[in-house]
Formats: sequence, structure tokens, C-alpha cells
Amino acid sequence: MSTVQGLAADIGGTNTRLALVENGQVCQDTIVRFRNADFETPEAAIDTYLSTAGHPVCGSAVIAIAAPIDGTAIRMTNHPWTFNASCIGKILGGAKVRFLNDFEALAYSLDKVDPTRLKPVRTPDRQVRTNATRLVVGAGTGFNAAALYQTAGDNLVGTGECGHATLPVETDRELRLWTYLSRNRKRASVERALSGNGLREIYEWHCLESGKLAKPHSPAEIARLAKEAIDPDCSAAARQWVTFLGRVIGDLALIFLSLGGIVLTGGVTRSLAGFLAEPEFAAALCAKGRQQELVSGIPVHLLDDDFAALTGCAARM
Amino acid sequence: MSTVQGLAADIGGTNTRLALVENGQVCQDTIVRFRNADFETPEAAIDTYLSTAGHPVCGSAVIAIAAPIDGTAIRMTNHPWTFNASCIGKILGGAKVRFLNDFEALAYSLDKVDPTRLKPVRTPDRQVRTNATRLVVGAGTGFNAAALYQTAGDNLVGTGECGHATLPVETDRELRLWTYLSRNRKRASVERALSGNGLREIYEWHCLESGKLAKPHSPAEIARLAKEAIDPDCSAAARQWVTFLGRVIGDLALIFLSLGGIVLTGGVTRSLAGFLAEPEFAAALCAKGRQQELVSGIPVHLLDDDFAALTGCAARM
Repeated sequence: MSTVQGLAADIGGTNTRLALVENGQVCQDTIVRFRNADFETPEAAIDTYLSTAGHPVCGSAVIAIAAPIDGTAIRMTNHPWTFNASCIGKILGGAKVRFLNDFEALAYSLDKVDPTRLKPVRTPDRQVRTNATRLVVGAGTGFNAAALYQTAGDNLVGTGECGHATLPVETDRELRLWTYLSRNRKRASVERALSGNGLREIYEWHCLESGKLAKPHSPAEIARLAKEAIDPDCSAAARQWVTFLGRVIGDLALIFLSLGGIVLTGGVTRSLAGFLAEPEFAAALCAKGRQQELVSGIPVHLLDDDFAALTGCAARM
Repeated sequence: MSTVQGLAADIGGTNTRLALVENGQVCQDTIVRFRNADFETPEAAIDTYLSTAGHPVCGSAVIAIAAPIDGTAIRMTNHPWTFNASCIGKILGGAKVRFLNDFEALAYSLDKVDPTRLKPVRTPDRQVRTNATRLVVGAGTGFNAAALYQTAGDNLVGTGECGHATLPVETDRELRLWTYLSRNRKRASVERALSGNGLREIYEWHCLESGKLAKPHSPAEIARLAKEAIDPDCSAAARQWVTFLGRVIGDLALIFLSLGGIVLTGGVTRSLAGFLAEPEFAAALCAKGRQQELVSGIPVHLLDDDFAALTGCAARM
């Protein structure tokens, strides 16, 4: 039974990622990914992980959760799991447990991730101030963002529940799609479009609009059929998806004034990476009227690292 | 010729407010308000103020500007004035000049303003964590917001150019209004609606929709005619305006997770204060699907202090 600095966990709406931490860094060979659906509770998932890892004694735990963090009892937004610091601490033999929002963890990872994992999407000429605010934005099961403010002392992360803001539409056609996404829900939030389910519903709506029958594709299949240019309806859905993504991240870049750059993450974003080079994305990102020049000058990268939130947890241990 | 700690200035899209500062506090009897239109440059306005005040020697200056602050040369968004720290420093006899965004200054004022100036708009039962993030939002010549993050060390303000984010619409009728607001501009930003000119254009559009001829009212007249229930078209415009305000601040509260409260400021917001008690405002603020409860629990106040940004400047001197 070994002793380690701690346990890092990243609990998303679909998957849980876990790793042991030493010296503020993730031990790469201890990383595992579980499907949430295979466990009743987060405690069960952590317990299984610790058993497999040979019951290490963890000094502390930093757990990133896809939920607003307000106190020590957390309820997830896109999943029925709930979290209690003292219950999780018990499984860890009394270790101190700290919760972070998953995007807070991602933002803290920005200075630590392997730079070769940051793939350029837009690299404008303009010089970036070294202390400018950076933004990390991602779409997977849900959508969220966080700003990393650089301060003289400790950095600070601002995050919230961006995915629940209103999905911005600009045309009659987009409003019809908004109305489709809002059925049974009264409204369409950003993540009703910018998520895996969102991609599927955009595809379904596109088929409906064209008088075709939608096939029962998964979001991953839609992304693949779009990428390989096999199914024009899937391609159209992908283009609409990156249009929304560009518009929303342009809005968030203005709201947070993230002149230091935008980093895109999330499984669905990665699955549609090829479409970030299409004109729809850049056009929607930069169409900000008098602030077009400001937004056009912001670098955009895609973070190709599914375990970056663990890196952020380790950095805050 | 006296010596004072410094000069505080708040330069908006229409008016400039100035005051002398001692011991980190605004000297109340030194506050003046100028119309920007009466001066060629901000230097001329400051020079006139200093002459009137008997040429005090200012140790430093903190100047809040309605513009994104990125470096020492600033260009306003809603006004042709530009700012250069060394040019302004010269008029001040070599005093060090620091620029803040005007909403940054407002956020820093939140702990310093006279509490009786904070008029309750919504006071939910829910207990607010003392260190929760607060949001200040205002509509005047333009629209913006800033978040005050409470940290263990110095507080931090996150601000940007929220007024340039996309105006969120949810119905066919609102999309027609969005299209009207976007004419000659390709798009309608938040501040195309949530500003004085926005109120006037919403009124014009409402008349157009009803087949009436819009009168050449100023935004202040529209607000007065709405408040006194004299003109139903002005009242309808005011209701639509607070609907947009509620929706946008609800979105911003989610984006910044400002569970510590929302403080409303700005001349146009104050002129429509009575409409914040109408059901349209609360309905739009809280209509956030699964996050309805979260947003409903956030206290909302109206800051009735036109010089609060000066208080924020003084606090940062």
C-alpha cells in the first residue's frame, strides 16, 4: 500500500476520468476512464479505481465536476449523481476533498498541458499581451466555458453555467431550429445546440426541413458522416453547429475580453475539428460589428487532450 | 494651490464625471459632471475641471472609460475620444495615470457605495454565500457588465464588452425587432436594444408594427411617457426593453455564476426603474430552464448613484 500526494478526478456528464498525482503532476500511467453508467454513485467509481490501483493512501483529492460548485454538496446538471465532500473523503481514508468546476480545472490546466496538444485553429498576426485573459470553451455532453485571469498573485478562474444561457439566433431559419430545440422545454439554451445531443437534434431538424426522414444516427456517427462528406444532411448539421459555436465563443470572448486566446475542448468539438476550418466558423466568430477587429485578433486553438482537466486538478492540489 | 491624493474621472459615452480624492474616498463637494460634447478632447475637459478647482496638485489619476482597456492608449467604443496616459499625465503635472474600464470601476465601488443607494428589485429568501461573485450591469449610452470575484487576497474584476454580444431573441416578433435593430449593421448586439438609442428604436419599431407614426421622442421622453402610462406605445417599448434586460442579465448571471447578486446601474435602467417590478422582467430573468431555481435565487438591486464609478476609481487609487 503506497502513499501518494492525491487523487485527481474529472467527472463529466458521460465519463469519469481518474488519476493519481505526485508533485502536482498527473502520473500518466495511472489514468483511467470509466463510463458513469457503469456505477451507481461516484463513490463506487472511486472505490473501484482505488482497488485497481492497489489501495494507495491519498493525501488529498481534487475532483472536477460538470456542475456549479457552491458549497460542499454538489448536484450535477446533466447527470443524476450528487457529491458530498465528507462521503467521498471517507472512501479516501479521511483525505481532504476539494471540488472544482470541470471548466475551472480545464482553465487551470492551460499553463500545464503539453503545448503540442494545442492545435492551431486561428493564429492572427496581432501581438497578444502576456497577461491577457484566456478562455477555455468546450462542448461534449453539455457546454461550458471558463476564463483564466492572470493576476500578480495567484491566477483566478471565472466560470459558471454558460451552456444554459440563451442560444443566439439571427435568421428566420435559425429561429425555426431554435423553436425545434426548445420543444417541451419552453426555451433553447446554448447547450441544446452545442452538445452531442444538440448535433443530433440539429441533424434531425435539418432532415425535417428538407422533407427527409432522419436516420437514427448517434452524434459520433453524424460527425463521422459529415467529416467524410458521405451524408450532406450530416454535413449541413455540422456546419450549423460550428456556426453556433463561432457565434457563441465570439460572444463569450467579448463578455470576458479574452484577448489572450480561446482554447476549444470537448469530445464533440474535437469530433467536428475539420469544420473549424470552414468559412462558417470564422464568419460567425468574427461577425461582431464594431468589435469585429477585436475578435478577429484573438488566437483560437483546439486542445487535443481528453485528460486536461486532471492536469488542472493536479495543479491545484 | 493645494495638494490632493488624486483625480478620479468617469468618462462615459455622453458625460464625463470628475472629482478629487483624499484617503481613497471621493471628496463629495468636488464632483462635477460635464457633457463630452462641450469639449474637443478629454484633456480639455480635465484641464477645465482643474482650473475650476484651483489647480490642485494631483498625486495620481484613475480614469474610468467606457472602452476595452488594453494598454496605455485607449479608443472609446461609443465616442470619438481617444486616451493616452502620458498626454493626460502632462496636464496633471506628471501624475501617474491609470485607466480602468468604467464597469471595472463600478464593480470596485460595490463594497464602498452608500448601502441606502442600493434599491431592492428582487430579494429572494435564499442565503447568499458571503464570498459569492457579484455582477454589476448597466445600460446608458451603451451596455456593459462586470463581475466582482472575491478572493482571499485582492478582489478581482472581470469585465469586457458585453454590449457587443448577440442580442438574444426567442420569438418571431422579437426576431422582426432584431432585424429592425440590425438594419445597416448586419447584426443586432445587446446594446442595440439595451441603451437609450435602443429604447428609441424599440419604440419606433413598435409603432411601425402597429401601423402608427412614431413621434420624434428622445429616450428620456419615451421613459417618462411609459412611466406615467401616457402613451401605450412607449409603455410597450419599455416592457420589451426590460424583457431583454431580464433575459440578458439572467444569461450573464449564468455565465459569471454571480450568485452574490446583480446590481443594475445606468441612466436608462434608472429611467425605467418602475418597469423592473413588472412581470415581464422577472419572467425573462428567471426563464432559464433547469437553472431557473439558481437564477431565481439571485438578489437584484438598482444602484441609484450616478457617481459610483468615481467611488470605484478612488478605491483603486
